[in-house]
Amino acid sequence: MKIQIALDRVDLEKAESIAEEAEDYVDIIEVGTSLIKDYGKKSVSFIRERFKNRTVLADVKTCDEGEYEFRAMFEAGADIATVMGNSPIETIEICYNVSREYNKDIMIDLMETSKNKLAELKKFDDAIFFVHLPKDNKHVNLIDNFNKNSDLYRGIKRIAVGGNVREDILKDIVLINPEILVVGSAITKSSDIKLAARRFKELLQK
Amino acid sequence: MKIQIALDRVDLEKAESIAEEAEDYVDIIEVGTSLIKDYGKKSVSFIRERFKNRTVLADVKTCDEGEYEFRAMFEAGADIATVMGNSPIETIEICYNVSREYNKDIMIDLMETSKNKLAELKKFDDAIFFVHLPKDNKHVNLIDNFNKNSDLYRGIKRIAVGGNVREDILKDIVLINPEILVVGSAITKSSDIKLAARRFKELLQK
Repeated sequence: MKIQIALDRVDLEKAESIAEEAEDYVDIIEVGTSLIKDYGKKSVSFIRERFKNRTVLADVKTCDEGEYEFRAMFEAGADIATVMGNSPIETIEICYNVSREYNKDIMIDLMETSKNKLAELKKFDDAIFFVHLPKDNKHVNLIDNFNKNSDLYRGIKRIAVGGNVREDILKDIVLINPEILVVGSAITKSSDIKLAARRFKELLQK
Repeated sequence: MKIQIALDRVDLEKAESIAEEAEDYVDIIEVGTSLIKDYGKKSVSFIRERFKNRTVLADVKTCDEGEYEFRAMFEAGADIATVMGNSPIETIEICYNVSREYNKDIMIDLMETSKNKLAELKKFDDAIFFVHLPKDNKHVNLIDNFNKNSDLYRGIKRIAVGGNVREDILKDIVLINPEILVVGSAITKSSDIKLAARRFKELLQK
């Protein structure tokens, strides 16, 4: 399982220092939506240049204008870019095609995506599907939510999970065994970021 | 009816020059999603500073983290910020509350928003509801689409419409009579931006 660390709601210098501390224990560095909306695509190229040996994900949350946004993110150095699963199917199709053209990855964020839409999206069978709890809803438990809907995810080859991920749910995450686990503040807001990242890696390897 | 000009897929200097040419004939200057994702929130403050007498809309298309994004846009000088209608209801509620706190406006983008969700959203009765055709779907006609769903929009006080708006549909737009008409490339890509903006204004006043 790969660990993706989400950098959000900090300035670029702080994002860099967080990523430096966590770097040895994570596989993917996520340039969070807040960094992109605060600084634009230079946030992606900034992280790309500083972490050449890590996969960089641009959480651009495309809703429309798929071609323009996905090209911008890949040109800025992203290896993976995100599109909202509840966007128009045409947008997702365009993002998928741009990702194929660049030989990069697309992550489809399933937040608020209907069952019917998910069924339609499964045709993008090498896309990464992100089972994602919104930050703005604290009342849903990631594991319960995943297990309740696990039938829907059947047949998906590449799964990422995330949203309020804490150490205490890692034993359940191991059972789900996604390709990618997205972790945010449990690492980035820790008083010892390096230690927190190492613990996550160790607990997932057990 | 107010005209909102959407600035998209250009650099900041070009955005400024387009807005300068159109300024006398438009009411709202939209800092498009592409400007925000290319340049970050400084695109909003840049347009704010240069067009002090115009309403500035930040098309931030918030999907999550409503508080952070809406505060960022209003602090950057936006008068209106956008949230996706298909976002978690908690996100839209938060965005609404932040807009009230700042005494600014919220625009809820109804792209890919279900009928049930729209019914739920009507409680935000002083929000602006944006009936919006995606740029990535060229097969749907704005007027047909609006008229087909007009029952759904009943009771909404503030309506904006947009998406592939061209001169030839203005006579139908006049019948719909939204508070705001959002126009993009029909003005911004015109060989004579000033003339195009003036024609839109004149045709809508007839």
